[in-house]
Amino acid sequence: MVAGMAGEFEFVRWLRGQQSASELVAVPAGDDLAVLNWDGADLLLVGVDQVLDGVHFDSAVHSPRAIGTKVVNRNLSDCAAMACLPAAAVVSAALPRGADLEFAKELYLGMKGAADAFGCAIVGGDTGSWAGRLALSVTILGRSAGVPPVTRGGARPGQKVYVTGPLGGSILGRHMTFTPRVREARDLAGAGKASAMIDLSDGLSRDLGHICRESGVGAVLFEERIPVHADVARLPADGRSAVEHALHDGEDYELLFVADGVPATMGIEVGVITADAGVRLRGARGDVPLEARGWEHSL
Amino acid sequence: MVAGMAGEFEFVRWLRGQQSASELVAVPAGDDLAVLNWDGADLLLVGVDQVLDGVHFDSAVHSPRAIGTKVVNRNLSDCAAMACLPAAAVVSAALPRGADLEFAKELYLGMKGAADAFGCAIVGGDTGSWAGRLALSVTILGRSAGVPPVTRGGARPGQKVYVTGPLGGSILGRHMTFTPRVREARDLAGAGKASAMIDLSDGLSRDLGHICRESGVGAVLFEERIPVHADVARLPADGRSAVEHALHDGEDYELLFVADGVPATMGIEVGVITADAGVRLRGARGDVPLEARGWEHSL
Repeated sequence: MVAGMAGEFEFVRWLRGQQSASELVAVPAGDDLAVLNWDGADLLLVGVDQVLDGVHFDSAVHSPRAIGTKVVNRNLSDCAAMACLPAAAVVSAALPRGADLEFAKELYLGMKGAADAFGCAIVGGDTGSWAGRLALSVTILGRSAGVPPVTRGGARPGQKVYVTGPLGGSILGRHMTFTPRVREARDLAGAGKASAMIDLSDGLSRDLGHICRESGVGAVLFEERIPVHADVARLPADGRSAVEHALHDGEDYELLFVADGVPATMGIEVGVITADAGVRLRGARGDVPLEARGWEHSL
Repeated sequence: MVAGMAGEFEFVRWLRGQQSASELVAVPAGDDLAVLNWDGADLLLVGVDQVLDGVHFDSAVHSPRAIGTKVVNRNLSDCAAMACLPAAAVVSAALPRGADLEFAKELYLGMKGAADAFGCAIVGGDTGSWAGRLALSVTILGRSAGVPPVTRGGARPGQKVYVTGPLGGSILGRHMTFTPRVREARDLAGAGKASAMIDLSDGLSRDLGHICRESGVGAVLFEERIPVHADVARLPADGRSAVEHALHDGEDYELLFVADGVPATMGIEVGVITADAGVRLRGARGDVPLEARGWEHSL
């Protein structure tokens, strides 16, 4: 499980004491693989998401607990995007050679806190140290639990486009501290309200492009309806408008979904799906093609 | 799926064309998570294993195809250690900034070739580039498929200790090119022959210690029965005996298992389980405590 870190045996012993009980787990962590009972009525959803020092966080700025929290929350946000329930996770950590036991524990406690908040068990892991920088990878297993997964491919012309919260400026801190929208996604999909869904990691312009491409449709966004987060006003001036930040910044981790119609409490209507391909922005100058400029932060 | 690599969209398009059909897969790769059908009669085994540049391989020496092969084979070897059938895998890759599309394709083809050889589908991944060195992490899902998992905890005093092949000197190349013993493990466990099992990654001395600790037993190894691989004779002289290399080198990826007795075709008998804790080596000087010196290679 752990190779080459000072205090490795103490860490493994400590880790074992941290395991939450889960009726899913048939053989606890510490063997070659964890063994889970899986209800065959549940679809098994699986995905992996990594965070890298200097790309998704800055180890000189962010605490190990905050970094651990982020990597699990990104994976939980992928569960939200598919409307599944998080069930279990495994973790690999490549620690810089100087990292000590306390650093490893703090990383783990960040991951565990985030996972526990959504009933997700961390069931295994692989920790090593190397001459490189900190890299964390989390694989998440989700279960459908009575709600069919919502893909990116179900949008139809005439349906409306929604987001679950204000966008832009997450670089000021929200990209580390967001709450994954698992409950909101289960409510939406459980009520049969979401035809297509994705979580906003790359930015509204790019993520809406993913939905349109997978669904074989296009979309128009209404400029005056784009909800701009208050953080945007606190960004240093860079010549870009507030709406541009909301459209392109990324790492909002709100849901972007397509539905025939939902109450205002479940989503903010920002656009409409069209038969014509491509994403356009409708504003004072009419409809203009919207370039997918969004990307994940590079710190 | 991919952030920041030159040619990223081309890579994703190419990746999608590479997907093997699998009846396990309900929604193919390309959404937020892969969606799998899972037979509730199968236990779900899950584990993660990473390889890091300068620790498990040397990117200046080893080809991307060989590196991709190794990371998947290490995970398949974990499946062997539990006697489960590999079912699906997801991959995260942190690529050095200079890596190009061809490099990423070669890594993937190495992983896919290894996975295909054991009927394992690669169902998702996350690729990013960074200022750091190459790090690959693979999560494997295995299914019990009629054979109860074999843990490290089932060894009982009086049972015999076996390995599936000669040991030592894997640093000369076998640590990159081994064949995971999935079929051997299924045969053994399917016949009810293995009470406890592990794959030899850390070295015989240390991995037998893992079995003893988890089983609450000890063991005696018979020095003259330790099978020494021919590679050991080709190692540069370092003052250590051939048997010492076989006991401690690690990364053999043979199986180490405990059984009441198996035919010589299924395993090489190397020792016996004792009620007294600790691992001892029985040789010309009688029984001496065997220090767990083995570890994974540091290149």
